[in-house]
Amino acid sequence: MTVIEKQTLIGKAIPKLDGPKKVTGEARYVQDIELPRMLFAKILRSSRVHARIVRIDTSAARKLPGVHAVITAADTPGVPLGHGKDNPPLKSDKVRSLRDEVAAVAAESEDIAERALSLIEVDYEDLPAVFDPNAALLDDAPVIHESHPDNIPFTYEYSQGDVGQGERDSDVVIEDKFTLHFVTHCCMGVSGAVAQFDADDNLTVYSQTQVPFLYKKDIAPIIDVPPEKIRVIQPSIGGGFGSKLDIYPFEPICILLARATRRPVKLTFTREEEFLASPTRQPVELTLRSGVKKDGTLTFRDVATVHDNGAYTSWGATTPFVIMQTISSLYRVPHCSYRTTVVYTNNPYSGSFRGFGNLQATFAVESHMDKLAEAVAMDPLAFRLQNAQQPGETTPQGMVFRSCGLAECLTTAAERSGFVEKHARYSRYGRGQNGQGGPVKRGVGIASLLHVGGGAKIYRSDGCGTMLKIDDYGHVTVLTGASEIGQGSETVIAQFVAEELGLPISSISVVNDDSELTPWDVGVHASRTTFIAGNSAQRAARKAREKLLAAAATKLELSAEELDLREGNVTRADTGEALLELPRLIRSLHFAKKSEVVMTAEYYEPPSVPQDKEFKGDVSASYAFGTQVVELEVDTETGVIRIVKVTAAHDVGRVINSLGIQGQIEGGVAMGMGYAISEHLLVDEGVIQNPCFRDYKLVTAPEMPEIDMHFIETLDPEGPSGAKGVGEAPAICIAAAVVNAVYNATGTRFDSLPLTPERVLRRLKNHA
Amino acid sequence: MTVIEKQTLIGKAIPKLDGPKKVTGEARYVQDIELPRMLFAKILRSSRVHARIVRIDTSAARKLPGVHAVITAADTPGVPLGHGKDNPPLKSDKVRSLRDEVAAVAAESEDIAERALSLIEVDYEDLPAVFDPNAALLDDAPVIHESHPDNIPFTYEYSQGDVGQGERDSDVVIEDKFTLHFVTHCCMGVSGAVAQFDADDNLTVYSQTQVPFLYKKDIAPIIDVPPEKIRVIQPSIGGGFGSKLDIYPFEPICILLARATRRPVKLTFTREEEFLASPTRQPVELTLRSGVKKDGTLTFRDVATVHDNGAYTSWGATTPFVIMQTISSLYRVPHCSYRTTVVYTNNPYSGSFRGFGNLQATFAVESHMDKLAEAVAMDPLAFRLQNAQQPGETTPQGMVFRSCGLAECLTTAAERSGFVEKHARYSRYGRGQNGQGGPVKRGVGIASLLHVGGGAKIYRSDGCGTMLKIDDYGHVTVLTGASEIGQGSETVIAQFVAEELGLPISSISVVNDDSELTPWDVGVHASRTTFIAGNSAQRAARKAREKLLAAAATKLELSAEELDLREGNVTRADTGEALLELPRLIRSLHFAKKSEVVMTAEYYEPPSVPQDKEFKGDVSASYAFGTQVVELEVDTETGVIRIVKVTAAHDVGRVINSLGIQGQIEGGVAMGMGYAISEHLLVDEGVIQNPCFRDYKLVTAPEMPEIDMHFIETLDPEGPSGAKGVGEAPAICIAAAVVNAVYNATGTRFDSLPLTPERVLRRLKNHA
Repeated sequence: MTVIEKQTLIGKAIPKLDGPKKVTGEARYVQDIELPRMLFAKILRSSRVHARIVRIDTSAARKLPGVHAVITAADTPGVPLGHGKDNPPLKSDKVRSLRDEVAAVAAESEDIAERALSLIEVDYEDLPAVFDPNAALLDDAPVIHESHPDNIPFTYEYSQGDVGQGERDSDVVIEDKFTLHFVTHCCMGVSGAVAQFDADDNLTVYSQTQVPFLYKKDIAPIIDVPPEKIRVIQPSIGGGFGSKLDIYPFEPICILLARATRRPVKLTFTREEEFLASPTRQPVELTLRSGVKKDGTLTFRDVATVHDNGAYTSWGATTPFVIMQTISSLYRVPHCSYRTTVVYTNNPYSGSFRGFGNLQATFAVESHMDKLAEAVAMDPLAFRLQNAQQPGETTPQGMVFRSCGLAECLTTAAERSGFVEKHARYSRYGRGQNGQGGPVKRGVGIASLLHVGGGAKIYRSDGCGTMLKIDDYGHVTVLTGASEIGQGSETVIAQFVAEELGLPISSISVVNDDSELTPWDVGVHASRTTFIAGNSAQRAARKAREKLLAAAATKLELSAEELDLREGNVTRADTGEALLELPRLIRSLHFAKKSEVVMTAEYYEPPSVPQDKEFKGDVSASYAFGTQVVELEVDTETGVIRIVKVTAAHDVGRVINSLGIQGQIEGGVAMGMGYAISEHLLVDEGVIQNPCFRDYKLVTAPEMPEIDMHFIETLDPEGPSGAKGVGEAPAICIAAAVVNAVYNATGTRFDSLPLTPERVLRRLKNHA
Repeated sequence: MTVIEKQTLIGKAIPKLDGPKKVTGEARYVQDIELPRMLFAKILRSSRVHARIVRIDTSAARKLPGVHAVITAADTPGVPLGHGKDNPPLKSDKVRSLRDEVAAVAAESEDIAERALSLIEVDYEDLPAVFDPNAALLDDAPVIHESHPDNIPFTYEYSQGDVGQGERDSDVVIEDKFTLHFVTHCCMGVSGAVAQFDADDNLTVYSQTQVPFLYKKDIAPIIDVPPEKIRVIQPSIGGGFGSKLDIYPFEPICILLARATRRPVKLTFTREEEFLASPTRQPVELTLRSGVKKDGTLTFRDVATVHDNGAYTSWGATTPFVIMQTISSLYRVPHCSYRTTVVYTNNPYSGSFRGFGNLQATFAVESHMDKLAEAVAMDPLAFRLQNAQQPGETTPQGMVFRSCGLAECLTTAAERSGFVEKHARYSRYGRGQNGQGGPVKRGVGIASLLHVGGGAKIYRSDGCGTMLKIDDYGHVTVLTGASEIGQGSETVIAQFVAEELGLPISSISVVNDDSELTPWDVGVHASRTTFIAGNSAQRAARKAREKLLAAAATKLELSAEELDLREGNVTRADTGEALLELPRLIRSLHFAKKSEVVMTAEYYEPPSVPQDKEFKGDVSASYAFGTQVVELEVDTETGVIRIVKVTAAHDVGRVINSLGIQGQIEGGVAMGMGYAISEHLLVDEGVIQNPCFRDYKLVTAPEMPEIDMHFIETLDPEGPSGAKGVGEAPAICIAAAVVNAVYNATGTRFDSLPLTPERVLRRLKNHA
């Protein structure tokens, strides 16, 4: 008798299924797509930050041998794109920023296309420009879009309780202004697309989009192709991080060139172009006024922010949705008010970026938490614990914390890092008193985060579909709507399916890159894929499991409850005795008189609800929490900050793929560190000054600190196997922990980023 | 109020969905597949018809720059392939025919591969060879396969009733020997494959196979890759006609070269190679003894056949399954006996070919039907009608004719062609009596056919799976197991789905070319696809229809029975009043609180049963019948036959796509005409003498006669919308009708084919 022990794949270290393809060079990125008769496209961008277009003459470019099409706004349907629908793919009347697209060429080679660009003559009439959002709010400021003479495309207002009462209840009130800077995603795979129309005028676009199904809908009017005639194929995507949540002009341009030439057209960015014409994390000026009672109870928060929207409105404009969640609900605060003004400028425009406003919000809130704790003479940990959300709470904004590991994250991160003792010790010795005997000061800082962990119902459906079939040999094909952008969703989805069916992970193929084949999904954003697509895949697999167990039960004359699926076998559930090979069972079903092939489908829609008009509602099916303690050194003679160790405790619901989640934490920490200490997209009067990796400093391997990770498994009741989303979380609170640690080390508190050596040194010198 | 009349797509003329791709050159055949780092393969074939391999020296070939691998049998797992599992992909001990594969090369270009072949040295020791199957049956005949010292890989015996009794009941008994010749498929797309292993050792093979799922199973041991690691992608296939039902050595060779080189490898045939190394329609010597009573009642048939199997056993060896059906069941004949001996020779081997033995069987049976009619002085039509099968009959072989339009086919074809009158007139004037006043004689001939029309349960499952999803705009993706080989299945499947869902055909995409995506299907053979895959698709679509109507009923507060789906709308079933656009309904389902996306799956298995050991059983869920009348002219001075008109009446159950079925009839008639009058693969001592279209004469457009088609709609109770399969039928009885017409015209009866001018003239001169 062969006995097979019950094993689980959940929580195991599963190498990414797409790993071998990527390390062997087999993966095909958009740059690798080659189609017969393919042409190459290039975009002519504005040479002015704000100007009227007087004349565009493309005649010389059109005459260049090898050029197949030159298009301007006149050759487009004239429908603007982007979340704000204020961005024509090609500009006709005026340009509003340096990245503005004016004309485009499709030619036999990139070289010819480049030469053609140089032959296009554009006459501009310069207009006064504005780069500071506060200046853009002045009455006599230049108007960026005639449709918004006040330069304000959006405002947000939110309130809970009565801030006046909160202020009256407070023993201490503090107010600070925080200023957050431009950064950009720096995806290793630069932007690009390939478009092709077939003989029936169906469009296939090889796109890096993170949201293929919304993409079909959104791009349709811009290119005048009905959505049902658009097929989105996603080649391997070299990083998304939110940057591919919106549609940018290069995609309709590529498609319109394909239509103009009736040939496939490829358009890919250079790295410089990627810097110049990619979205940014939106710069925010945030004024935070907070109150606390002597006993350490938070009383109120009053927040006003100004967002530099840049010249057009992409998803960056909507980050207040997330910002207000952290402000209202990371800690218990009864009275809260929040106002945002989003302002057009002639700067590059901002998009969605991992964390989606939460890095900015958490930076301010967690800086203040330290200041408030100090004001009431409390330890930062104890203060946070006293105000931390607890499981079962419904926040005034309407979020329901069915599971919540914030207190456990706080205590775990603090204990494992020795935070309390170090914080006390460094604050005594660190602050310039040179107790450590040199110019290098140590500090520890703590910060926590709240983020959606079960999707976010910002669109009318937040669901994901799965279709699944099993072949005669136990090989499973899973068609999922969820996109893989490097985050590892493919592997996690395969894990859920393999787990249900008692199969090795190698038996599962995940198809996730072709809108023609895969069922609907809202897309990769809001840390939702493990939760939503995982639930969908798990339920589809469970249906297959039930079918198989029922068939096995009949065959073996046992009840389904007495059986289990393990390692490709039907076994007894109690003893593990192997009774029947699964492929054999599958074939016996298939080759029976009443023949059956196992195919199942599932559409999972989370039980979340959209926010109401007051921005209240349980918008996610689960919420993720985390605490990170940063220990660092500040060299007070050079200004250099060295992050020594990050202790990260995250409420992840349940670890599904331990390798994957480690990767998410490491990547998030690196990204959060970059935001905190090194990354800065320098924009001077609308001109990006450092469009290259020499001048734009990412955190790379040598700067990576030790990361001590702890996963708090709160077993979310709605999560697949208890998991919640954690894609964005690890990037969110690093910056706050860093400034808190720098204060702990030096007594100097920063209210803006990044803490580059120059900026640190300048402040320390002033301070000293 | 908008009223939408009930319309049906069934029976309409729907242009093939893959037509635009094919006429614009967008379709990608295997020849068009390009993969990064792809190598090119060539095969070294035997230079002897039968010889021992003494030595193969590949060292010089291996050294040629640009050569990446040279393989011989030693580099293969040594597992033989083909239906008879007697054909090693590369031969080690001996060669048995000129097409035998001895070694193969993968190189940077086809030119280098060719040069490398010329550097491979093979020493042979000739063996005595045998080319005539009767000679191969002699005791001292050379042995082709040691495993079969008698050269007989298969025999078949079938009987019903008591032939002795039948003979005793007969007033007339006649006996003839019919000899059928070599022809080959002449697919416009020559054979080829591309194989690639990925980083996880999964194999993707771009194959022209007609049976992707059996292919996975069958090729697995030959290449030593488990079937679950094999993905079969079918590029556009330039004709199958049964030729791609088996696995031939070039495919494992291509795959083994890909594994040896760890690079993608493409192997494509030249046209000459296609002639030399493709399967053939098996040559048959058929001795038929038939009896009849004076009143025109058939009494018995006694048949013995010898099949030239060639050197290896592919599907050709199994054509007796079909041959015996026609012999036993095309007409009512109480006593029947049938014996086949399949014989190895050193000739090219035979495979499956549209009609699958039925052209040979029908040629003999329908020739005899005319002779028997004449013997009892009956009109050929009346004689056939008297013995024709009728609806509801169960034949002694166990076939159940739930629908049967044979009598109607006979009368329709006869009436529309004026057969009875012309037959009588031409037989008076035509037979050399020159009543027509010149050397050109006219004749009409009639013949009928029986073929499976609802699949054939020769494998353990004859089913087909469908998965279907509908997007938010009413665009439907249908994943079907059924393969498109040019026969139009894609279009018919889309029609069934569009019909159920009340959508235009352009709303349907059919995915049918990738075993990773599509559910199981036994493959394209036995005229089964419209019937089996059509039933599967129709049922999957019906499930979706029911979901949509139920949702519409709830929304509209009506019952589902009161509603219909028409032209993308939900309408009242009675008045046709348009109530709701379908995409709107779909979106309202999707964006509801209990969100749903329409996905359905169906596995259809026909109610047929495998034959028992005595070859009896209701092996198909439906049977197709047809009658063709050929009117032709014989130029008695040149021997040239000009077919003037074909009147074809086919019991097709129900016309689904009138354009598609017309195409099948035209193509089948052309192919049947080629078999009858022009096509002949000349094999002289194992050597093909005419491996090119200059010397192998296909029927082309200028020779095509007027075809007057009539579709008898018997509405098969199991068929999808009543349809039955008709893919093979139109090719089957032309040859018999031609010889009957030639007899009608000249008084000379041919018992072998093709009726080329030389052969006709020679016989007429002898006869005269």
